[in-house]
Amino acid sequence: MSEIRDPGNVFVADCPARLAIDLLGDKWSLVTISALRHGPRRHGELARMIGGISRKMLTQTLNRLKRHGLVGRRVYAESPPRVEYELSELGRTLVEPIAVLTRWAEEHGPDVVVASEGARPPR
Amino acid sequence: MSEIRDPGNVFVADCPARLAIDLLGDKWSLVTISALRHGPRRHGELARMIGGISRKMLTQTLNRLKRHGLVGRRVYAESPPRVEYELSELGRTLVEPIAVLTRWAEEHGPDVVVASEGARPPR
Repeated sequence: MSEIRDPGNVFVADCPARLAIDLLGDKWSLVTISALRHGPRRHGELARMIGGISRKMLTQTLNRLKRHGLVGRRVYAESPPRVEYELSELGRTLVEPIAVLTRWAEEHGPDVVVASEGARPPR
Repeated sequence: MSEIRDPGNVFVADCPARLAIDLLGDKWSLVTISALRHGPRRHGELARMIGGISRKMLTQTLNRLKRHGLVGRRVYAESPPRVEYELSELGRTLVEPIAVLTRWAEEHGPDVVVASEGARPPR
């Protein structure tokens, strides 16, 4: 798990690995998958959990993850109907890789802030 | 390394960890950092390594990573001047977390393709 293997073909524009990176290289996808890691959540719950996301952006992100097989949508025949989103089996394989990235962000986020404040404006 | 810790405050819109995720939640940043993992590279080398990136987008990505302290730019007094980009110490701490994500992409990219092809168009 800690061995650095050459990620090789993520550099090729049309390979499956690159498609996966394109899908993940989106902050709302990362945060939404992370928000679903403990189990199914309703749309409103997710909207409250994820600071700064609009309901429209959350819907778009969930639809995108659903189209790519990472998230499932379940409708319960209640009145009013209850709709929940949950990670698919494929989506769950992403929880740990994303946790590695968020641990980095928590550890080094303040360093990025310091470096950004010290930076001169780009030429 | 394999323990799943609660990423907690990545959900808060204005915390440093979220800034870091915003920065990383960009496919070109991920791929560019990955392309620099073995040492300094010139702009033209990077453009050839990264399939599908335009020179303008590469310049923007490098400037962004530079502003956030992840990449350094070195100019050699040669004729013509040689310019190289390299990961900073902070940038190098990202190589392993990104490698975890790219390993996931290589392993599961084909599953994403299958799931996407089997999907009905979004309603």
